[in-house]
Amino acid sequence: MPIRDITFGRPEEAYYPDTLRCALAEFFSTLIFVFAGQGSGMAFNKLTDNGSTTPAGLIAASLAHGFGLFVGVAVSANISKGHVNPAVTFGAFVGGHITLLRLILYWIGQLLGSTTACVLLWFSTGGLTPSAFALSSGVTVWNALVFEIVMTFGLVYTVYATAIDPNKGTVGTIAPLAIGLIVGANILAGGAFDGASMNPAVSFGPALVSWDWKNQWVYWAGPLIGGGLAGLIFEGIFIGYHTHEPLRATEFN
Amino acid sequence: MPIRDITFGRPEEAYYPDTLRCALAEFFSTLIFVFAGQGSGMAFNKLTDNGSTTPAGLIAASLAHGFGLFVGVAVSANISKGHVNPAVTFGAFVGGHITLLRLILYWIGQLLGSTTACVLLWFSTGGLTPSAFALSSGVTVWNALVFEIVMTFGLVYTVYATAIDPNKGTVGTIAPLAIGLIVGANILAGGAFDGASMNPAVSFGPALVSWDWKNQWVYWAGPLIGGGLAGLIFEGIFIGYHTHEPLRATEFN
Amino acid sequence: MPIRDITFGRPEEAYYPDTLRCALAEFFSTLIFVFAGQGSGMAFNKLTDNGSTTPAGLIAASLAHGFGLFVGVAVSANISKGHVNPAVTFGAFVGGHITLLRLILYWIGQLLGSTTACVLLWFSTGGLTPSAFALSSGVTVWNALVFEIVMTFGLVYTVYATAIDPNKGTVGTIAPLAIGLIVGANILAGGAFDGASMNPAVSFGPALVSWDWKNQWVYWAGPLIGGGLAGLIFEGIFIGYHTHEPLRATEFN
Amino acid sequence: MPIRDITFGRPEEAYYPDTLRCALAEFFSTLIFVFAGQGSGMAFNKLTDNGSTTPAGLIAASLAHGFGLFVGVAVSANISKGHVNPAVTFGAFVGGHITLLRLILYWIGQLLGSTTACVLLWFSTGGLTPSAFALSSGVTVWNALVFEIVMTFGLVYTVYATAIDPNKGTVGTIAPLAIGLIVGANILAGGAFDGASMNPAVSFGPALVSWDWKNQWVYWAGPLIGGGLAGLIFEGIFIGYHTHEPLRATEFN
Repeated sequence: MPIRDITFGRPEEAYYPDTLRCALAEFFSTLIFVFAGQGSGMAFNKLTDNGSTTPAGLIAASLAHGFGLFVGVAVSANISKGHVNPAVTFGAFVGGHITLLRLILYWIGQLLGSTTACVLLWFSTGGLTPSAFALSSGVTVWNALVFEIVMTFGLVYTVYATAIDPNKGTVGTIAPLAIGLIVGANILAGGAFDGASMNPAVSFGPALVSWDWKNQWVYWAGPLIGGGLAGLIFEGIFIGYHTHEPLRATEFN
Repeated sequence: MPIRDITFGRPEEAYYPDTLRCALAEFFSTLIFVFAGQGSGMAFNKLTDNGSTTPAGLIAASLAHGFGLFVGVAVSANISKGHVNPAVTFGAFVGGHITLLRLILYWIGQLLGSTTACVLLWFSTGGLTPSAFALSSGVTVWNALVFEIVMTFGLVYTVYATAIDPNKGTVGTIAPLAIGLIVGANILAGGAFDGASMNPAVSFGPALVSWDWKNQWVYWAGPLIGGGLAGLIFEGIFIGYHTHEPLRATEFN
Repeated sequence: MPIRDITFGRPEEAYYPDTLRCALAEFFSTLIFVFAGQGSGMAFNKLTDNGSTTPAGLIAASLAHGFGLFVGVAVSANISKGHVNPAVTFGAFVGGHITLLRLILYWIGQLLGSTTACVLLWFSTGGLTPSAFALSSGVTVWNALVFEIVMTFGLVYTVYATAIDPNKGTVGTIAPLAIGLIVGANILAGGAFDGASMNPAVSFGPALVSWDWKNQWVYWAGPLIGGGLAGLIFEGIFIGYHTHEPLRATEFN
Repeated sequence: MPIRDITFGRPEEAYYPDTLRCALAEFFSTLIFVFAGQGSGMAFNKLTDNGSTTPAGLIAASLAHGFGLFVGVAVSANISKGHVNPAVTFGAFVGGHITLLRLILYWIGQLLGSTTACVLLWFSTGGLTPSAFALSSGVTVWNALVFEIVMTFGLVYTVYATAIDPNKGTVGTIAPLAIGLIVGANILAGGAFDGASMNPAVSFGPALVSWDWKNQWVYWAGPLIGGGLAGLIFEGIFIGYHTHEPLRATEFN
């Protein structure tokens, strides 16, 4: 992917085959991911009669989201680059890899995909309502905001290092797995405190279907700040390093 | 795999080395997969004296099926393309990748493999009977039908995007893992509601051995509809896109 | 790995760089694998005051053995081909891939590695004794024998399809993971009935250190029969197919 | 990576693009890894009101550390070679792959990353304190020392075999996963006895933030001894073998 060298660092919309088709790929990927992830929480509620979260419940959420996102990223990797997350799309925008038009279309695809997954879950489960994300007792919105910022920073940093970096080498082969499993790992930490969204689309669908918007802004601000920071930092320190040394440009592939 | 370009979109039976040998590979792959997957449910029943499903039990089912299918797909990937599932075979047929003869032989191999696994489990466990899939309380056949459709759509969409798409690139290297783990993820959701089959062979073996055919049609209709839809949609939107632009044909590899 | 074509199907000892060094690699791989796997069972006993196995305990055993074997195979893959299991070595011998001398040296390395791991665990845990494999109530030696045969058949079939088959392609990249995770999957089934060894070295070390040899023969006969069968079947049906068609030999790589 | 052949076995600082940038990559990787790993322990305490460790808790710790380290290694693999652990850096130093200056800078980055993660966790969780590593009852410092030595030996042996060995082949593609999951496997054993650190940075951050230095030396001495031993043994037996045979040098890549 030597596009950055060819265009001297400026993104080219034409690099992506077809923006609308890509938005559709984001729709299907987010649908598949959210159906498994949000569905695992509803399964836990079903099995425990809405009991409070246990370590086993957290593990189930971690694996469902980790495996589901791995697959969501893998299936759209060759079409839309596998964002499956408005914060990843924002991070790619901040780093100069996509245009504003593409960001808007991806966001629409991602939010629609999550909402469709929640409606399908509502019907498939015999009428159970997906649960909106919420803060645990003793956790303030500021705690949760920092939690989401740090976790999403790690996620988008991973996207940059394993999928966007033109110097990624064979790490690119396992990029979808790394992107899925950092979310799985973070849920084992943050899931007990604020639900560990790291993804505005993941929080939006359940909030819309259950019409519960309490603290929704935290699950948008945190991921967008964390993802934006990761884009700026990785781009500036690690990718910027290479692209500003034209003599080495031929090494990139 | 530029076969589709060479043949102008028509599948060629000759593309596969030997149909009977492939059906045998499907037999062994399905046997290995179902032995671990169905066996994990029997282990849960053994350890809990047939207790009701817990989140830990769902995790065990998810990992046994996810890991087992990953391996089942990997070991037949280079022989029969690693379907290990009548719904995947149907999806490949709908997309025009295999002939009706091959579909029939694969189905026979898959159903025999699952049945053999269940008979071996019956003996190995000292006479325990594999359990047929069933609906949880509060879940109607229509709920379960939609659940199976959506989950199998995700599975066959994954097969198309990571294994069949000629544009798959390095994602093909991790295709067996993605195919296994989307099933693992979906079980963490659907397992609590309808058992999460996504695979008529997986439901057929236990039904035959325990002679319990209640709602068996749901576990055939759901996966076949979902798999067929995924084949049509991915083929039409994402693969079709490329094959209808002959000028780009040389890019495929 | 076109060795079989070059030598017209006869294995060449010289194909392996250095037999003794390979046996040492098997020693270290088996030590690392058994330390994690057997150690996870001792950790469960520690945390539950020797409580009876629960689904969570089975999951812990599955992941410790699955992840540990994945790594054990990966670290010796380029030296000794990553057997880490006398049954795999036997299956490779039956298929004509190694000599009897190599089999003997590998077995010594594997058995010593397992024993060393158990002695180190005994000291590290403050004097706890590793537990020998045993049958659950209601499981006869004949049930367990078949269980071990089927599970090890799946394991060695996986080794053949993903690591030995010269036609393996990119599946070879994820071979160590497939080999580890089929063991992880099978433990979720067989672990509740006979401990799910699939590996004489895994059963030998704890039996020696705890001096408990009851039914030890089952954990040798089962894996060797299953592994041998897998070698014969895969070699005869799938690999044999190719090597008996000399005109296609140039396709293999 | 034929650097060793080119330089006749002597490491070249110039092989690494930029030492300070690499130390920064180690900082971010360790931050991401420790945030998930240590955070999972705090989540368990939150969900169980500081209950004693259960098998489910051990599984959560295993997955959080295993997945988190996989990602930590993957994201810095192409920059700093993905050490994310002072013991790995020490093992690479002992094997002659990095200079003392680089070792010192990496250690600073790793220790700062872990400490920053702990401070961020303290704030994000609403003021909970990360827990320092401690010995379980019945486990002496000598038991724990051997436990840490053996587990870290396995970890650094894995790093050598899958990432440093110039003969690693396609195993290199899955090296970050193998490195992460051997830690995940070992935690399922050692986690019940001494916490299973295998990484001085992982023990240092929580000790500093909670100001609890009891037995801290064990979590430095064990990993450094085990990591150093692995470096010496793998270098001497397996890599040394190749580099001392100049006629084969052209085979390495």
